[in-house]
Amino acid sequence: MQTADYIIHADYVITMDNDLPVLGNGALAIQGNKIADIGSFDDISKKYSSKNIIKGENTAVLPGLINTHTHAAMVYFRGMADDLPLKEWLEEHIWPAENKWLSPEFVSDATELACLEMLKAGITTYNDMYFFEDASSIAAKKIGMRAVLGAGIVDFPTVAGNSADEYLSKAERFIKEWKGDDLIVPCIAPHAAYTCSPETLKRAKNLADKYNTLLHIHLSETEWEVREILARYNKRPIEHLEAIGFLDKNVLAVHCIWVEDNEIELLSKRRVGVSHCMESNLKLASGFAPVVTMLMSGIKITFGTDGAASNNDLNILSEMSTTAKVHKALSNDPTVLNARTVLLMATRWGAEVLGIGDITGSIEKGKAADIVIMDLNKPHLTPLYDIYSHIVYSARPSDVETVFVNGKLVVDNGRLCTADEEEILSKARDWQGKIR
Amino acid sequence: MQTADYIIHADYVITMDNDLPVLGNGALAIQGNKIADIGSFDDISKKYSSKNIIKGENTAVLPGLINTHTHAAMVYFRGMADDLPLKEWLEEHIWPAENKWLSPEFVSDATELACLEMLKAGITTYNDMYFFEDASSIAAKKIGMRAVLGAGIVDFPTVAGNSADEYLSKAERFIKEWKGDDLIVPCIAPHAAYTCSPETLKRAKNLADKYNTLLHIHLSETEWEVREILARYNKRPIEHLEAIGFLDKNVLAVHCIWVEDNEIELLSKRRVGVSHCMESNLKLASGFAPVVTMLMSGIKITFGTDGAASNNDLNILSEMSTTAKVHKALSNDPTVLNARTVLLMATRWGAEVLGIGDITGSIEKGKAADIVIMDLNKPHLTPLYDIYSHIVYSARPSDVETVFVNGKLVVDNGRLCTADEEEILSKARDWQGKIR
Repeated sequence: MQTADYIIHADYVITMDNDLPVLGNGALAIQGNKIADIGSFDDISKKYSSKNIIKGENTAVLPGLINTHTHAAMVYFRGMADDLPLKEWLEEHIWPAENKWLSPEFVSDATELACLEMLKAGITTYNDMYFFEDASSIAAKKIGMRAVLGAGIVDFPTVAGNSADEYLSKAERFIKEWKGDDLIVPCIAPHAAYTCSPETLKRAKNLADKYNTLLHIHLSETEWEVREILARYNKRPIEHLEAIGFLDKNVLAVHCIWVEDNEIELLSKRRVGVSHCMESNLKLASGFAPVVTMLMSGIKITFGTDGAASNNDLNILSEMSTTAKVHKALSNDPTVLNARTVLLMATRWGAEVLGIGDITGSIEKGKAADIVIMDLNKPHLTPLYDIYSHIVYSARPSDVETVFVNGKLVVDNGRLCTADEEEILSKARDWQGKIR
Repeated sequence: MQTADYIIHADYVITMDNDLPVLGNGALAIQGNKIADIGSFDDISKKYSSKNIIKGENTAVLPGLINTHTHAAMVYFRGMADDLPLKEWLEEHIWPAENKWLSPEFVSDATELACLEMLKAGITTYNDMYFFEDASSIAAKKIGMRAVLGAGIVDFPTVAGNSADEYLSKAERFIKEWKGDDLIVPCIAPHAAYTCSPETLKRAKNLADKYNTLLHIHLSETEWEVREILARYNKRPIEHLEAIGFLDKNVLAVHCIWVEDNEIELLSKRRVGVSHCMESNLKLASGFAPVVTMLMSGIKITFGTDGAASNNDLNILSEMSTTAKVHKALSNDPTVLNARTVLLMATRWGAEVLGIGDITGSIEKGKAADIVIMDLNKPHLTPLYDIYSHIVYSARPSDVETVFVNGKLVVDNGRLCTADEEEILSKARDWQGKIR
């Protein structure tokens, strides 16, 4: 009989491992930060004892959800400017606010709020692109989230730096400082092909190669971007990145809305991962990414919320449901993006495109215990014929009862364990008073 | 000093009356089933005293949401068959299940679950089309919801009747029995132009004229329907209904996806209301209704969830957010369907198209107290710059704290007051065991 730190027992254990088995009346044992074992409750309770047995009737256990694209600290700009043309939204609202308010303190406080929101929505890992990522790292670690954090790189001055040189050297220092951390995975985040010169992009790629990190970039989000890159380089954005040798399996391309068939082939051939940000794309009227075509080309499509200034929440469950539904209608085919595929995109594939598929993304022996327990005893989840259907089409953040990240209990009975929720909200309201 | 049954005090009172004022630090007084007064908290507390003062920091009060199209009892088929072609979904799953299981007892039990789900999501009124509407009426009244209930009419035999004659005479009896009830508004619900002959539709219309009730009908949901009506009558569905004199201000047309400009003009000219069921339309891949064009033609577009077998929940907040976002992208214009318009569609317009705009749909003196209090002290609702933005783009059913229908407290601190939630869920699971 071994000792486990936790034994979790549930009506459904949704593993999302290779064969997608769902264990009825299943259980898992957590030892340290790892999933030590999975099986029927009978088997697990014969092999393990624990002082902490979490036993829930009408519950489901699933891998923590993965948010593959956000600008977490932008939660402080949530709902500040809606229903506006993209240019006006960015140039008259978001950029001026960022110029005025961004600082390590802002990023730290706002990241705490974002992590609180995400954990309570069952998201255990997020991939960020912003500035002051040291502050983000400390905040995410304090709240207890797994985070891939990308030091932002552009060619022009911002509050966070003056030149590509400065951003790149800051990024290298950031990577060296955080590489090997148990929760934080540093990466490089050149903003886009229209804000970074080919030279800057190549230098970012060299850094990523040197340290084997993810390259996180916005790509083909708007029609304007395609026209701009065509005008500058006589190539479409993905062709341009291919020409400069940027594309490989370490690249996570965000949005990929305005892409043509030959560009989809390039993404597939170079094994580039894609982060699809449906709700942000819809709300900003950026367009519809050809998700079904990309999936059929073998590209791993995953879910990002984008920043809360354009969404307006950090809710992967809602991205899953909206994405499945919208692409059924666009394809005129209700069978595409079925619930199993969608949950795979939100879990295992999410981890894989972030380069941490060996660590998280599914409930498998030896992986980190990044685990969500959902309470199914809710009107909108009753009756229940198919657990995948409920997770994708009916579940809500408020159904998330318990969350573990890296073996640590971070949300218990819907409340954050690692910091004071009221304090985080109160700090956010103080900032709101200043920003308004 | 007058006595009020309740005084509600909130940071924001969102009235949705003609000028859409939002009262900061506002209050309202409820006397009996009516809103007796609205104003600043100072004013209201000078004029009224009450034993029940509901005072919440970080709360918003808004009119109860209106769900203008559902088949409430279909919650028992939630998630039973997803990701399937429409024909297979209907013919191999939904219809056989209905044939096997539908009964007054099924409809009563399932309607209780649907009402529980809707009230907890801030919906105070719903418009139903199904069979055994006596059972629905009793269940909705018991749970304390306002409901417009349409006795379903088709030309063929079902478990609920054998012929148009029988459905029509049942509908007339149903109307006579329930007309004048304080919560239940009976109406006539001929299923569609492809399931009801012109003769049946005319007789339904005559009944609606005789008793001045709503006529609730599915219209132009699928391309197949348009082809079918064209083949039978050499007219498109809306032209066909116009030709037989069916269209007027008492008609609520549901879906209106496959409509051409001349048909939009007809809907506008005849002052027909429209129920838009975005999530169901997307999930069944039925198509995209031209919502923005219809709105610009002066048609009142409102929100319906459709049945939970095709959605898969009864959540108007999510319909609001999804609809606003999808139509921004379809129009390539992020300024369309702004948050104020969307909330108007979900409240006052909803009541108006159901013919009960004098009773509910806004917070106005003399209207019934159909009221929702939302708790804003949540990570995903913080910070707050614009209350409309938060209600439409960020709020979730779990933010609904308190609900009044017709002056009666039906949800208190997120729990149903009128029946035992656990009993309703447990009955649903018993049915699930049989149906599975």
